[in-house]
Amino acid sequence: MNAAPQIALLLLVALGSSQGLQHRYVDRVEDLDPDQDQDAEAQPLQAGPSPFGSLWPLPQKVQISAVAFKLNGDSFQMSDGKGSSAGPGCSLLQDAYRRYYEYMFGGAESQRTGPGGRTGPAVLTGLQVWITSPDSDCDGHPGVTSDESYELMVDQPYAVLKAPKVWGALHGLETFSQLLYEDEYGVKSINSTTISDFPRFAHRGVMLDSARHFLPIKVILANLETMAMNKFNVFHWHITDDQSFPYLSRTFPELSQQGAYHPYTHVYTPTDVKMVIEFGRLRGIRVIPEFDTPGHTQSWGKGQTDLLTPCYSGADPSGSFGPVNPILNTTYDFMSRFFKEISSVFPDAYVHLGGDEVDFRCWKSNPDIQKFMDQQGFGKDYSKLESFYIQKLLNIVATTQKGYIIWQEVFDNGVKLHPDAVVHVWIGGGASGEMAKVTAAGFTTVLSAPWYLDYISYAQDWQNYYKVEPLGFNGTDEQKKLVIGGEACLWGEYVDATNLTPRLWPRASAVAERLWSAANVRDINDAYNRLSAHRCRMVERGIPAQPLFSSYCPHEYKGL
Amino acid sequence: MNAAPQIALLLLVALGSSQGLQHRYVDRVEDLDPDQDQDAEAQPLQAGPSPFGSLWPLPQKVQISAVAFKLNGDSFQMSDGKGSSAGPGCSLLQDAYRRYYEYMFGGAESQRTGPGGRTGPAVLTGLQVWITSPDSDCDGHPGVTSDESYELMVDQPYAVLKAPKVWGALHGLETFSQLLYEDEYGVKSINSTTISDFPRFAHRGVMLDSARHFLPIKVILANLETMAMNKFNVFHWHITDDQSFPYLSRTFPELSQQGAYHPYTHVYTPTDVKMVIEFGRLRGIRVIPEFDTPGHTQSWGKGQTDLLTPCYSGADPSGSFGPVNPILNTTYDFMSRFFKEISSVFPDAYVHLGGDEVDFRCWKSNPDIQKFMDQQGFGKDYSKLESFYIQKLLNIVATTQKGYIIWQEVFDNGVKLHPDAVVHVWIGGGASGEMAKVTAAGFTTVLSAPWYLDYISYAQDWQNYYKVEPLGFNGTDEQKKLVIGGEACLWGEYVDATNLTPRLWPRASAVAERLWSAANVRDINDAYNRLSAHRCRMVERGIPAQPLFSSYCPHEYKGL
Repeated sequence: MNAAPQIALLLLVALGSSQGLQHRYVDRVEDLDPDQDQDAEAQPLQAGPSPFGSLWPLPQKVQISAVAFKLNGDSFQMSDGKGSSAGPGCSLLQDAYRRYYEYMFGGAESQRTGPGGRTGPAVLTGLQVWITSPDSDCDGHPGVTSDESYELMVDQPYAVLKAPKVWGALHGLETFSQLLYEDEYGVKSINSTTISDFPRFAHRGVMLDSARHFLPIKVILANLETMAMNKFNVFHWHITDDQSFPYLSRTFPELSQQGAYHPYTHVYTPTDVKMVIEFGRLRGIRVIPEFDTPGHTQSWGKGQTDLLTPCYSGADPSGSFGPVNPILNTTYDFMSRFFKEISSVFPDAYVHLGGDEVDFRCWKSNPDIQKFMDQQGFGKDYSKLESFYIQKLLNIVATTQKGYIIWQEVFDNGVKLHPDAVVHVWIGGGASGEMAKVTAAGFTTVLSAPWYLDYISYAQDWQNYYKVEPLGFNGTDEQKKLVIGGEACLWGEYVDATNLTPRLWPRASAVAERLWSAANVRDINDAYNRLSAHRCRMVERGIPAQPLFSSYCPHEYKGL
Repeated sequence: MNAAPQIALLLLVALGSSQGLQHRYVDRVEDLDPDQDQDAEAQPLQAGPSPFGSLWPLPQKVQISAVAFKLNGDSFQMSDGKGSSAGPGCSLLQDAYRRYYEYMFGGAESQRTGPGGRTGPAVLTGLQVWITSPDSDCDGHPGVTSDESYELMVDQPYAVLKAPKVWGALHGLETFSQLLYEDEYGVKSINSTTISDFPRFAHRGVMLDSARHFLPIKVILANLETMAMNKFNVFHWHITDDQSFPYLSRTFPELSQQGAYHPYTHVYTPTDVKMVIEFGRLRGIRVIPEFDTPGHTQSWGKGQTDLLTPCYSGADPSGSFGPVNPILNTTYDFMSRFFKEISSVFPDAYVHLGGDEVDFRCWKSNPDIQKFMDQQGFGKDYSKLESFYIQKLLNIVATTQKGYIIWQEVFDNGVKLHPDAVVHVWIGGGASGEMAKVTAAGFTTVLSAPWYLDYISYAQDWQNYYKVEPLGFNGTDEQKKLVIGGEACLWGEYVDATNLTPRLWPRASAVAERLWSAANVRDINDAYNRLSAHRCRMVERGIPAQPLFSSYCPHEYKGL
């Protein structure tokens, strides 16, 4: 563990239990668009151990005492509590026990625990995990309404983790593993601790883009693993785009056969997709696929004749194609069959339908489109044609019993949305106003505008992500309740397997804490200290999370 | 090989041999400070194969014909020419044959060569390597005056590589390996080709910083390997700084014992240093260590009492320390012994002495320093004190028979330099003026100001590095001859083992071509195409070189 000996020595700050985090309250609440021009390097940060050790994201209520127990990796037991609704048959928990045992006691460090640890006489013998609700959700899928809360009591002779559902138990296991440290003799130790925890926002996502560059399954799984370490619970998979169509569709195999960068080495087979979904489920992570239309679809056209609009140069087709052709019945037949497949392949209750950045130039050039516009009385307003398409698509998807998420333009263009539609706000500069408008219209919303992690700059940009306040817009309490969370988006133009992981972590960790922890957890110094330790922990777990600033980890990354 | 079949099909541009690259001449020569604010993304690039395939950096003269030969990995021979001055006893070349054989025929791809290749009847049976000078330099070390030129003739029945010294042969082997591609049936192929090549600049460096973050040896060696793929020939090792002192000195072991991040896991032992030097030598790369003084030395003070200046708060020492204490004889005794060790450990004829960014505040606070200033008649001009120190240091280093490189401030402050001193220009904004001044004063210079690769920004910043013209300052021909090259600098505040390699490559490759190829090689479209292929080749060789833009490699990076 990277929490390192010095944290043990300095973790002697006992907090009043009922006060929780009150002493850390910061009354200045930043807008959701912090000044991106500020020089993050100029922020004076005081490096050193945090009273909260390496906890990340910070739980809602934490009480850490000075009393330490030692742990014996050979005999330490993680077991189901007697009254737990999840028994040994719950493989989700068994899998998590193994994973966290490895994190806590695996690796070279565990060899350093010799006979006769010297932390003191008290030993923590194990961790009991109680699922308190009659239905543990062990075999279910996480969803936006899933209960993710948990309570953790670390005291002799064993620690107790209570959670209504397995999802909270997973988070509690992560938190428990973050409390472990090695004392100065290498003895695994943990302090007497009481934690009561739940997420501030239900939707805490990371968006990856597997179309601008193909992301090998190994990379996706490693990032799901890291998401769990940061209590993210949504993997928004922007799976296709203009550049490539790597999703192997059973119904329309030509889409990837023709539209992927390579039909065999650069595709996600049905088995791959299943693996991603199950790997996520075992970590409490929803997998929400995005199939973005009617724009961003050049790759779709390679394997599906007549799907895209033929562009014209004067009176003749130019040979190039524009967005999905919204005036043909075949388009909607295709979409019906395609999204029927998607709705059965992806278990999540939501699918992301995109709808952003539709370029009207090709539609304008096409005489058939123009005729259709006239017939429909759209005049020259092509956003009405876009709305016409989206409206029909939404109706198709509604028949699959799925809810949908759409990028903000769909709302902006006045498309009639189902009441349960989720509007994804991404356009920077005016995000506060957009959040106010979307919620005033009664729609649920997810924020990404300040968290476009593909934009990079020198120095500590994580601080800008951290300072965002998602509810920092003008609106009523009712409006604010409609903000279900946010997503860190890493668009793929400049990232692939070579650099995605260090570029994402720990920058996305800043978003993770903003979405999980209490609104008043804003102390940038304390965050720096905890995040530095958290990033070294990710490195020790094999994730190449990049450094925040000049520093070292006890165990540096072993790869390249 | 990533050069991919389509390159074979399109490599049908035969160039007149004597014309060389004339048809690619671009008469607009950029200044050495291109506009850093320009939106690199806005540059319209046409993706596609280059007539020069994946050659990087582009050789001085290339003639590629449409005639292709196939190669049989099982029987292909790399051997010493009969008249070569380097025989089988030259392990540098034997080592290189193995390395390039692996690159060319190793890996899964070689399995794709079945019986009966179909490129045509002509076969290239091998590559003969002739070292034409009586002394091959096989057991020597590369230096700033080393001959790196080579000639490569690919024709039946075997290719011939001629070079006066082994250094040119190493570059020629890299070039030969870059000419290989697989035809559409996976047959390793190469076109009949004539190349005559030599570097434009003698000093082509990469600077890495192992003090802000410790860089595991594995990372340093991987980057030396990648430097060779880009024909870089200087590893400038900024080995110590304020943050840590990882160099294990035999003479003063306390320096790393106290000053490293960790005295065992975060140090470079004498064996490590030897390994780096030999690994570099085998690739034609000089290792120039930098021991930066009198500033940037906080870590030195931990293991060497009285080396640093005690700072005062009013009349009393504050407990903190400033730059090296220039007024004590013990300082110079220490430096004499220390640089005596350095001069014997590092074989290169030059050592980098730093001398940048000296903070005068501590000196100003110290009454002993003030008294010394009065005695010396320096008044309040602390740059005179800095010069006093540097002058003495330079004299010490001169006794070790080493030349030295110093950062530009040492020149700017008027320190008397030996005629063979090299001035390293790094301060951005006025680099043209500085280059003119330094060379007008008759000093050799190395340019880094436009190539600080630790500064990152969105999109294709490699184009800015590429557009630099190192001789784009006002000066006579004599002055321009004093520019021996440049270095890409990757300072370590924000990079460690997790992210250094993808952040450095292929951005440093842009600098590599600028320093190797002819001044008129400036076609950004052609560079984009060759560099895209070159970066995929680096990925196939196991180096996580990041993408230039949306794209794919036939074999994506296998790591994280």
